[in-house]
Amino acid sequence: MSKNNKITPRSEDYSQWYLDVIEAADLAEYGPVKGTMIIKPYGYAIWDNIKNVLDKKIKSTGHKNMYFPLLIPKSFFNKEASHVEGFAKECAVVTHYRLKNDGQGNIVVDNDAKLEEELIIRPTSETIINYSFSKWIRSWRDLPVLINQWVNVMRWEMRTRPFLRTSEFLWQEGHTCHISKSEAEKEAKKMLKVYVDLVEKKLAMNVVAGKKSDSEKFAGALHTYTIEAMMQDGKALQSATSHNLGQNFAKAFETKFLDKENNFQYVWQTSWGMSTRIVGGLIMTHSDDKGLILPPEIAPIKVVVIPILKEKEDNTKILNFVKKIKFGIKEIEVDTRNNVSPGAKYNEWEKKGVPIRLEIGQREMENNSVMLVHRHNSIKNLVKINDLAKILKQELKDIQEELYRKALDFRIEHTKTVDNWEDFVKEINNNNFVLAHWDGTVETENKIKEKTKASIRCLPFDQKMEDGFCVYSKKPSKQKVLFAKAY
Amino acid sequence: MSKNNKITPRSEDYSQWYLDVIEAADLAEYGPVKGTMIIKPYGYAIWDNIKNVLDKKIKSTGHKNMYFPLLIPKSFFNKEASHVEGFAKECAVVTHYRLKNDGQGNIVVDNDAKLEEELIIRPTSETIINYSFSKWIRSWRDLPVLINQWVNVMRWEMRTRPFLRTSEFLWQEGHTCHISKSEAEKEAKKMLKVYVDLVEKKLAMNVVAGKKSDSEKFAGALHTYTIEAMMQDGKALQSATSHNLGQNFAKAFETKFLDKENNFQYVWQTSWGMSTRIVGGLIMTHSDDKGLILPPEIAPIKVVVIPILKEKEDNTKILNFVKKIKFGIKEIEVDTRNNVSPGAKYNEWEKKGVPIRLEIGQREMENNSVMLVHRHNSIKNLVKINDLAKILKQELKDIQEELYRKALDFRIEHTKTVDNWEDFVKEINNNNFVLAHWDGTVETENKIKEKTKASIRCLPFDQKMEDGFCVYSKKPSKQKVLFAKAY
Repeated sequence: MSKNNKITPRSEDYSQWYLDVIEAADLAEYGPVKGTMIIKPYGYAIWDNIKNVLDKKIKSTGHKNMYFPLLIPKSFFNKEASHVEGFAKECAVVTHYRLKNDGQGNIVVDNDAKLEEELIIRPTSETIINYSFSKWIRSWRDLPVLINQWVNVMRWEMRTRPFLRTSEFLWQEGHTCHISKSEAEKEAKKMLKVYVDLVEKKLAMNVVAGKKSDSEKFAGALHTYTIEAMMQDGKALQSATSHNLGQNFAKAFETKFLDKENNFQYVWQTSWGMSTRIVGGLIMTHSDDKGLILPPEIAPIKVVVIPILKEKEDNTKILNFVKKIKFGIKEIEVDTRNNVSPGAKYNEWEKKGVPIRLEIGQREMENNSVMLVHRHNSIKNLVKINDLAKILKQELKDIQEELYRKALDFRIEHTKTVDNWEDFVKEINNNNFVLAHWDGTVETENKIKEKTKASIRCLPFDQKMEDGFCVYSKKPSKQKVLFAKAY
Repeated sequence: MSKNNKITPRSEDYSQWYLDVIEAADLAEYGPVKGTMIIKPYGYAIWDNIKNVLDKKIKSTGHKNMYFPLLIPKSFFNKEASHVEGFAKECAVVTHYRLKNDGQGNIVVDNDAKLEEELIIRPTSETIINYSFSKWIRSWRDLPVLINQWVNVMRWEMRTRPFLRTSEFLWQEGHTCHISKSEAEKEAKKMLKVYVDLVEKKLAMNVVAGKKSDSEKFAGALHTYTIEAMMQDGKALQSATSHNLGQNFAKAFETKFLDKENNFQYVWQTSWGMSTRIVGGLIMTHSDDKGLILPPEIAPIKVVVIPILKEKEDNTKILNFVKKIKFGIKEIEVDTRNNVSPGAKYNEWEKKGVPIRLEIGQREMENNSVMLVHRHNSIKNLVKINDLAKILKQELKDIQEELYRKALDFRIEHTKTVDNWEDFVKEINNNNFVLAHWDGTVETENKIKEKTKASIRCLPFDQKMEDGFCVYSKKPSKQKVLFAKAY
C-alpha cells in the first residue's frame, strides 16, 4: 500500500489501486518464492464461499469430486501435440526426490536420488486424467463419466499479480467423457451456463459469454467457451472457460468405448474450470477508492455492528442493548474492541467491503434504533430495532441487485459497435469493449493485436450471423466479434 | 483384487484383504507415478464428509482457513536443525521451470531454466508459515494467531499402500502462535480432543490418546500428542497428531512479539494435522470379509433401496410404490438399474459398505412394508412403510453405537498389561497392544523395537504415574506406556 496507509485512487494509478485494495482488506500477499501468493483468511473466506456455491452446482449437475495426483510424468505431455505447445512450457519440473546434509551443515540435493523420468507439477490435468479414463472406460454403459476436482495447479509466471496471475493457483477442473459429439457440446455449454449463473447471481458481475477464436482456444480443444467480464479500467477478464475437447485427448490416450453396435469409438470429452482468478475479477468489478466492495451473496461478513464504546467508561448498557437485537442473519460481526475509535473502525470495515454497517450510539439506543450505512453508496438510514431483521434482509437483496445492475450498465456503456478502423482504434484506446466485424483469419487477429493490444475476447453468443466487412482487412465477415484489451 | 473378483479373507492375508476391500468398494487406485494414489469418487466422498465435519470443528474453535504456497525454498529447511533431520530428506525437489521441444519431437527439460535455489514440495508447512508469522506478529495484541489449511503434501515413499502411506496425501495442518507456553500446551491438547471427538463420534473408531516418546515426536516439537487406533490385525495406526512446538520454530525464524511489559519474546507455537490416512484406519477398523463397512455418520450413502425389478416386465407399479415412501433421510440411493440382478446389487452395495439395505419385492409391496437389512451383522427385519422413517433414524443411530462399541471392545480385549519380558514378547507376537513399564531411555526403546518390532505408540493420558520396573531393562520406571507394532 502506498504511504499513509491510503489507497491510491483509480484515476491516478489503477494497477496500484488494485494492489492497495488487496492490502487494505488483508486478502493476500506475495509468498517467499517469486510468483507465489499467500491467501490470507479474509481472502480465503471469499474463495471458500465461491467454492461452496460452485461445488453445490457442480454436484447438482451430476458430477462427482475425486482427486488425481499432483505430479505428471513428462512423457504424458508428448502425447497430445497441440497440448504440448500450450502447456508443457512454463512448468515446474521435479527432478530429484531427496535432500541430504553435505557434511558441512548445508542441505543439498542428493544427486543419487535423480528421477529416471522428470515429473511435472500439473498445469492442468487432462493428460493424467485420460491415462485413467482409458483404463476405466470399456463400454457405452460406462458413459457419461462426469468428474471434478478442487486442486492447486502451477504455470510458471514471471510477471505476477495477486489472484489475477500467480504461478500457483487454486481451481476446480471438471472432466467429462461422452458417447457423442453433440452430448459433449451440450455439456460444455451447460457448464459455461453454471459459471454465468454463479458469476451473475452470486458475484454480481456481468459477463459476455461466447466462443473463443481458434488462436485463443485451449491447447488441445475443439472449441473453447468463455465468459468475459469487464473491469473498471475497461479491460476484459476471462473469468471461466469450458472446452469441448472433441476426441483429441481420447485419441492421444486411446480412451475408447464399445458402442451399442459393438464398434470401438473414441469418447468425446469436455473440461472446464474456474480459479482463484475470479477473486481478482470480483475485486476489480465492484471496489472503489475507499477499498473493497463485496456483494452480499458472497461476503464472508454481510453486516458489521459497531457499538460506540467509550474507552474508559462502563459500556455494559450499550453492549447489552446490542445483545438483545434480532438481526436475523448469521454472517454478522460485532466489533467490541475498546482500544480502536469508532472512526477507525468505520474505515477498517469499509476497506474490507462489508456491505452494511450498523452504528449504535447513545442516541440510537435511546430511540430504540440503529444507524444503517451502505458500503457501496454511503447512504445512511435510521432504522427501528423492531424492523431491523426485515429491513436487513431486503437491503442485502437490493444491494446485490444494485451492484449487478451497476456492473451491467457499466459494461453496456463501455461496449461500442464500430464499422471502421479509425473508430475501432479510438474506442479501444478509450478503454472500451468493441464489437466489430472480423474476417475470421488469424493474420488479421494478430495484426489488430499488434496495433492496438486488443485481442478477440470471444464470438459472443448473442451476436447474430450477419454479412459485413472486416473492420481491419475489409474482407467479408459473417459476424461481429468482441475485441478488448485483457488481463 | 484377487481372482474371481473375491475379497481375500482377513485370516488368509490381511494385507491383501485391505487392498481387495478398497478395490471392491472402488475407493482408490494407484496413479501412474510410483507412490501416488488416485482417490476415486466414492473414496473422495468419504474424505469429503470427514473434511466437512472437521472443518466445522476447526472453525468453531476459533481457527481460520488460509492458503500458503506449495513450494518452499530449500534454505528454509536449514533453519530449524531437528526439523531438517526429520523432513528435509525424502522430498520432491523442483529444479527447473521450463520444458522445451528438442527439435526432434521430444519434450526435454530446458537447462536454461534452472532455478537459482531449488524448491521443495511441502512435506509440511511449519517453515514457510513461520516466514509469514515473523512478518505479521509484532505485539501481544496480535496473539493468538489461529490458522489452518487444507492442502496436499508430499513425502517421498518407496513402499506405499493406498491411504495409509502414499507420497502425496491430503490433509489439514493447523498452525497457531501464543503468548505463553501454557496457552500453547492447552491449544495442542484441545485440538487433540477435537480429533478424538471426530474419530470416536463420527468414524466410530476407538483411540488411545497420549504423548509420544521423544524419539517418536515430530521433528522440531517440544511434545507430540497422538491418537492411536487399533486395526483388526492388532497393529496401531497413528490417526492424528498435535504438537506443542515450544519456541523452536519461532527462534529459527525470529517470530517475536512485544509483550505487555515491552519486552521482546518468542511466540509459543502448535501445529496439528489429520490426513487421508484416516480413511485407511476407518476401512481397517470396521470392514469384514464381505468388504467395506461404514459407520452411518460418515457414509456417503446411508441407505440403499433395491426394488426387485423384472428385466423384461413393466416395473412401474413397484417404482411408483418406492417413490411414495417417506425415508426421512437425504443420503439415500435408489438402485433402479434394470440390467443387474438383485443378488448382484446386494453384493455390490455390501462391498461399498452402505449401512442399511432396503429390499422391496412383490411381497413387501403387498404388505406395505420393506425388508431392512443391516450391512454390519446381516440381520433382517420386515418394517411397515409407515414406521420406516422413524425406524431408519433409530437404527442408523444404533449401528453407529454398535460399531463404536465393537471397536472399543476389540481394543480392550487386545490390550494386555504385562510385567515381564517373556509375557511382553508373547503378547506382542499375539498382535496385542501392550501396556508395560519403560525406563524412559531411547536405548531401551530401540532394543525393544529391534527385538519385537513394537514401538512406543504413546504415554497414554489415562495411565497414572506409578513406580515400577522397566519390562526390558528392569530399571526403575514411573509409568506404563503403550507398545504395539504399527502401520
